[in-house]
Amino acid sequence: MNKYMKIANEQALKGINNQEGGPFGAIIIDQNDKIVGIGNNQVLKEKDPTLHAEIVAIKNACKTLDTHDLSGCTIYTSCEPCPMCLSAIIWANIKTAYYGCTKKDAADIGFRDDDIYEFIKGQNQMINLKQLDREECLDVMKKYKGKMY
Amino acid sequence: MNKYMKIANEQALKGINNQEGGPFGAIIIDQNDKIVGIGNNQVLKEKDPTLHAEIVAIKNACKTLDTHDLSGCTIYTSCEPCPMCLSAIIWANIKTAYYGCTKKDAADIGFRDDDIYEFIKGQNQMINLKQLDREECLDVMKKYKGKMY
Repeated sequence: MNKYMKIANEQALKGINNQEGGPFGAIIIDQNDKIVGIGNNQVLKEKDPTLHAEIVAIKNACKTLDTHDLSGCTIYTSCEPCPMCLSAIIWANIKTAYYGCTKKDAADIGFRDDDIYEFIKGQNQMINLKQLDREECLDVMKKYKGKMY
Repeated sequence: MNKYMKIANEQALKGINNQEGGPFGAIIIDQNDKIVGIGNNQVLKEKDPTLHAEIVAIKNACKTLDTHDLSGCTIYTSCEPCPMCLSAIIWANIKTAYYGCTKKDAADIGFRDDDIYEFIKGQNQMINLKQLDREECLDVMKKYKGKMY
């Protein structure tokens, strides 16, 4: 077994045993193969639906490296990232992600990852999304143009 | 202008003025129209790529209500949620979301929201996603089955 995936998987097991959240773990290494962030799902423990394993690992890596930019890093996660975590990986500028279980495996134990992928692809209607007041919001957005991160 | 969207938009402006991150704000109300969470993008301020306005608002609402489950709540956000935030809204069990600007508007000022949507739909290759060690990871996942959150 890949040594980093093994650690991610051990994090998943730890999360189950401690009843911190779902069975998911992740680890991030930098370009020198040094571990910079590690995490497991802590949704129940922290009462925070955003604290999936990958998000926790990204937060920890950002603290370790003192930056929001994880360019050059690689993430290993015990399950295929949900769209939230996949997007977080992209926003963190991580370019390579390895995963163990699939979103179908996650669906088999009751998680909605696959449904969310289908919603984003327009194949179901999980929530209502409505637009309003674009003009006023665009006025504020335009004040920002040119600045990037 | 809708009174909640007005507050979300004011949060976006505050974020620009304080150089905390991108021009995005959000607010969450409960089923009695009481404000339970508010937020703006704090990616730069907190050096955390996951702290988009909607995520900050969700975290604050979860603290206010002391739960990871925001069923019955509604979110207003000054820009169409990126896939990370849209998924976080779903994981939080929020069923209705109002947004001001569009993902195309965000692209016009340099943000990659729309690219990430296209990646998830299989229309580009922003990062490398590879599977490994499914069998060992599935062994851990199976220990969890039946527990839900």
